[in-house]
Amino acid sequence: MKITVIAAGSWGTALSMVLNENGHHVTVWARGKEQIDLINQTRKNEKYLPGVIISENIEFTNDKIKAFNHADVILFSVPSQQYSKTLASFVDENLIKEDVIIVNVSKGIDMETLETVSQITERILPKATFVALSGPSHAEEVALGLPTALVSASKSRVAAECIQDLFSNDFLRVYTNPDVIGVEISGALKNIIALGAGVSDGLGYGDNAKAALITRGIREIAILGIAMGANAETFKGLAGVGDLIVTCTSMHSRNRRCGIMLGQGLTLTEAIEKVGMVVEGAYTVKAAYVLMKKHGLEMPITKELYQVLYENKNAREAVNHLMTRQRKHELDEYATNLENWN
Amino acid sequence: MKITVIAAGSWGTALSMVLNENGHHVTVWARGKEQIDLINQTRKNEKYLPGVIISENIEFTNDKIKAFNHADVILFSVPSQQYSKTLASFVDENLIKEDVIIVNVSKGIDMETLETVSQITERILPKATFVALSGPSHAEEVALGLPTALVSASKSRVAAECIQDLFSNDFLRVYTNPDVIGVEISGALKNIIALGAGVSDGLGYGDNAKAALITRGIREIAILGIAMGANAETFKGLAGVGDLIVTCTSMHSRNRRCGIMLGQGLTLTEAIEKVGMVVEGAYTVKAAYVLMKKHGLEMPITKELYQVLYENKNAREAVNHLMTRQRKHELDEYATNLENWN
Repeated sequence: MKITVIAAGSWGTALSMVLNENGHHVTVWARGKEQIDLINQTRKNEKYLPGVIISENIEFTNDKIKAFNHADVILFSVPSQQYSKTLASFVDENLIKEDVIIVNVSKGIDMETLETVSQITERILPKATFVALSGPSHAEEVALGLPTALVSASKSRVAAECIQDLFSNDFLRVYTNPDVIGVEISGALKNIIALGAGVSDGLGYGDNAKAALITRGIREIAILGIAMGANAETFKGLAGVGDLIVTCTSMHSRNRRCGIMLGQGLTLTEAIEKVGMVVEGAYTVKAAYVLMKKHGLEMPITKELYQVLYENKNAREAVNHLMTRQRKHELDEYATNLENWN
Repeated sequence: MKITVIAAGSWGTALSMVLNENGHHVTVWARGKEQIDLINQTRKNEKYLPGVIISENIEFTNDKIKAFNHADVILFSVPSQQYSKTLASFVDENLIKEDVIIVNVSKGIDMETLETVSQITERILPKATFVALSGPSHAEEVALGLPTALVSASKSRVAAECIQDLFSNDFLRVYTNPDVIGVEISGALKNIIALGAGVSDGLGYGDNAKAALITRGIREIAILGIAMGANAETFKGLAGVGDLIVTCTSMHSRNRRCGIMLGQGLTLTEAIEKVGMVVEGAYTVKAAYVLMKKHGLEMPITKELYQVLYENKNAREAVNHLMTRQRKHELDEYATNLENWN
């Protein structure tokens, strides 16, 4: 199969390597001539995937015509906030086959339109088949061939299974799931919770506090997802709690690193600059905040994070507020309805 | 209120400190005269809670009569496998008031009788009120006053709320939950999953593999819990996924440390010796394995861990087997029943 990967960040590059190892023809397109030339000369992507050697069989180019030539699958690994513009420009230039499979691996919600990436795709390219590829997966580990499990989510079972087959190998297990919106909301919101977990770490709080925050985070993600039509089961799975755990507990996570610096007193601008790559959670929190209000939901972590990032709320005050909310029963509704509990 | 704490390990000592700070009269009883004398002389519990100063107001004794004198609440922090014998001996000696509140903080299932601690208590002391106190809580962090959230679970709402009030303060939040068995199974089985997570780490696998294992672990815990009458919601909460996360990702966890050494090739006996404290998961896995068979359940992590620990199965083979099981859809039942997914 012929696959084009859009953008040569850490995840796009690591997935290209998997596809190539699995015997597929992969072309990676990126806008920056300098980056492409450097990769072609060194067979390394030092900025995004340091120390990893990239096979000669993977073609890196900034020539769109060459990159898109009859691709059956286009894998997008561009930041979520750029997805809409990027896809629209490709469509305008007639670069994409109508019946293509679009695979998206970025995790976020468009700040301006409040759309998930599948919703953007449906609007711009209604005949394409969309697959969200997600799950607990640091690019650095996949590039090293360490065991990893992913989820291929699509409304089309055929497409979900096609992408499952493309990526599956000895160390990469891919499971299918029909719940696209659940997988997308999980991926987007976990970056917000990871920012919060980072803030807790940055304030000097420990594993106990972070575990409590993550636990509440899972519920918060499910609350928004279910309001948007997702299946509650998805949040218990790899793309839900699995990805949330890895993002909140690992130093690989840019969102967590950004949160740590916020907790240590840096401003958002300073922290993002220090991370040096896109911090999806910082943008997604804006979209999630508006969606929360639109659906009339209670999402305390999203609310506090939004206030820390965009309304100058003190980070310690925000986390303390999350820890000390007036809630006494863990299973609120259950306990309230339990007539015999006395 | 007058509270007696049984055993002066890390958790028993840390909780005594909280109760004392909250203004309650606490007596800690432990069998070993040497340990008690050392704590009384140094006001430190160096073996279990290094570096922490213990208030003079907390009484440490190995005199049972003195310790149990009219206690309203007895908090047990003895290893699960010793609970039955310990409680029975106290009852035989008429040390315990019939209407006492028994709080248990250890996490395990009795290997011999397959009972949880609440079930043992109901058998030996049927008139007592039982509370399970659980949640993501490293003793080391609680002793330092770092923010922590716990769950007080009891069939008696009055008792659950009494224990909630005893422990709650500025940094310790306690939520109530009526689902005792769910909280107990969560606490017991998370130690098995943590052993597995440690094995994965010890084999040199990364965060991706561990997150996949934890995700499957949550389901496995819920499967046994629900079969034993628990509420599915409990497993999404602090005592469920919250405690699992903290145990699987932190170096404070003895079960995880033991697993790491197993993954590095040590035998179970060697690993337990090196940890130097009780590794609950190593015993609970035996009970969980029998319960799994008794209820006719599929619990792959428990099964593989049991085989590694007690049937000399190779650890790498076991983890690889967990990673490569023939399962294609993430939401198996959902995907199978989804007629329109094509």
